Amino acid sequence: MAISSLPCIQPVRVPFKACSFFPAGVCGGFNNKKRINAVVFSSLRKISNDIKFESKVDTLLDSIKWDDKGLAVAIAQNVDTGAILMQGFVNRDALATTITSRKATFFSRSRATLWTKGETSNNFINIYDIFVDCDRDSIIYLGKPDGPTCHTGSETCYFTSIGDLLKEQDVEKTNLALTTLYSLESTISKRELELTGKHGKPSWTKRLLLDENLLCSKIREEADELCRTLEEKEDSSCTASEMADVIYHAMVLLRLKDVKIENVLEVLRRRFSQSGIEEKQSRASTES
Amino acid sequence: MAISSLPCIQPVRVPFKACSFFPAGVCGGFNNKKRINAVVFSSLRKISNDIKFESKVDTLLDSIKWDDKGLAVAIAQNVDTGAILMQGFVNRDALATTITSRKATFFSRSRATLWTKGETSNNFINIYDIFVDCDRDSIIYLGKPDGPTCHTGSETCYFTSIGDLLKEQDVEKTNLALTTLYSLESTISKRELELTGKHGKPSWTKRLLLDENLLCSKIREEADELCRTLEEKEDSSCTASEMADVIYHAMVLLRLKDVKIENVLEVLRRRFSQSGIEEKQSRASTES
Repeated sequence: MAISSLPCIQPVRVPFKACSFFPAGVCGGFNNKKRINAVVFSSLRKISNDIKFESKVDTLLDSIKWDDKGLAVAIAQNVDTGAILMQGFVNRDALATTITSRKATFFSRSRATLWTKGETSNNFINIYDIFVDCDRDSIIYLGKPDGPTCHTGSETCYFTSIGDLLKEQDVEKTNLALTTLYSLESTISKRELELTGKHGKPSWTKRLLLDENLLCSKIREEADELCRTLEEKEDSSCTASEMADVIYHAMVLLRLKDVKIENVLEVLRRRFSQSGIEEKQSRASTES
Repeated sequence: MAISSLPCIQPVRVPFKACSFFPAGVCGGFNNKKRINAVVFSSLRKISNDIKFESKVDTLLDSIKWDDKGLAVAIAQNVDTGAILMQGFVNRDALATTITSRKATFFSRSRATLWTKGETSNNFINIYDIFVDCDRDSIIYLGKPDGPTCHTGSETCYFTSIGDLLKEQDVEKTNLALTTLYSLESTISKRELELTGKHGKPSWTKRLLLDENLLCSKIREEADELCRTLEEKEDSSCTASEMADVIYHAMVLLRLKDVKIENVLEVLRRRFSQSGIEEKQSRASTES
């Protein structure tokens, strides 16, 4: 989904106000009109919208290829980081409830009942959008978790690496299924921890963590080198390499400031939802 | 998984050489020893390693909570971008095959047979690591696809937004379930397309795309502002905000150079697998 069309961008833990799925009458606030006629027409429109919306949801639910038990797979994914938080199953009611409540809801096969993730822990997964796959039997709940998703307290349920198991390494709960950017973030954090413990090998990351002047001079230098790949028409592979340098060094700075890359992505998401950067910058540039 | 411990980092389409799961004798290249004794001992060790490894895999497969049909859910995820590529089911043989072949393999419920993604299209998903969830009934194949995963030619199978369906918007195959960074990338690409079509509103992104001097001056300025949040001990929220600015502006430059953020992440992953940035930079700094 293009970020410009993101329908529901709100800060974490703030209930979603905008409703991507719903017509205004279905989930908008009550409009306190004074004139009777307006109220009547408004009510009729709301009822009409409700019926139309329910009909659309029904059509959508009919289009899902439910298995012989009336279930489909649902995967909850963090909209900012891409981390797969958990996987469950949904039946028709669970998916309908998720669409309506905007909280990730599943069908428990063992208890044969609906359950909304967070109903006991308060760690809801706030739905941002829902995607179905080409076969219409698998669903992604793209959302923002209020807190750790796993009942063990882990950020996600996937903290057991088969690679580690086969190497007979200890399975740490922090050893999540991390993609590249978050693996890098994790490595930088580990280097910082090694600084106090006085163990581990010397590394460039540790030097940067200990020397703010060096770090800042590197960030400025790498940003300059990135620009020069454009200005001096260097090969695209140089651009990728310089951008990697910028990200890596800037992420060391984030660590020193105790900022997670997820926080940065939240900023980007919120800005674009409000036509943020584009609108603000455009305004500033026309004002100046 | 910490990036420093990444066992199998290779460029896309280059077969993985290092084997995270396997002892050297099991999947290492053939070592052409000249002395007979060495060959004998090597063979014995290999057999011993094979048996030990097979036993470990068996123990692991025993630990999976297979459902009443002997299946578990398997989700293939792009190790760099975090995109969920597809979801299928695995039985014992499919998971064992994936561990051995390092190509994402599933069990087709309709055909009641194993199938390796890519066996007809050549778009294999090269396995980087495998994770099981806390309940041991759901699996992530963390891997790198050789090409589009979906049989429709789409990068992933999740290109149908329920939000769009309920709004009766056209479902475009390019409207993937994108997380924040890739939504931003998609938005920047759309702004570039609008430049030639002479439609759409004015925007800051378009100004940057048209004015390389402005873009480069902004990238240098934002990098400087990011550094100053550290140097001048500004609040962490300022750091997140300035980092968002750096990423956004740098991503406009990536667009002009036709570089995908995925390419940049590949660079980072390869570097760290070879103790890249850290080792190279450390060497450079001790040499200077």
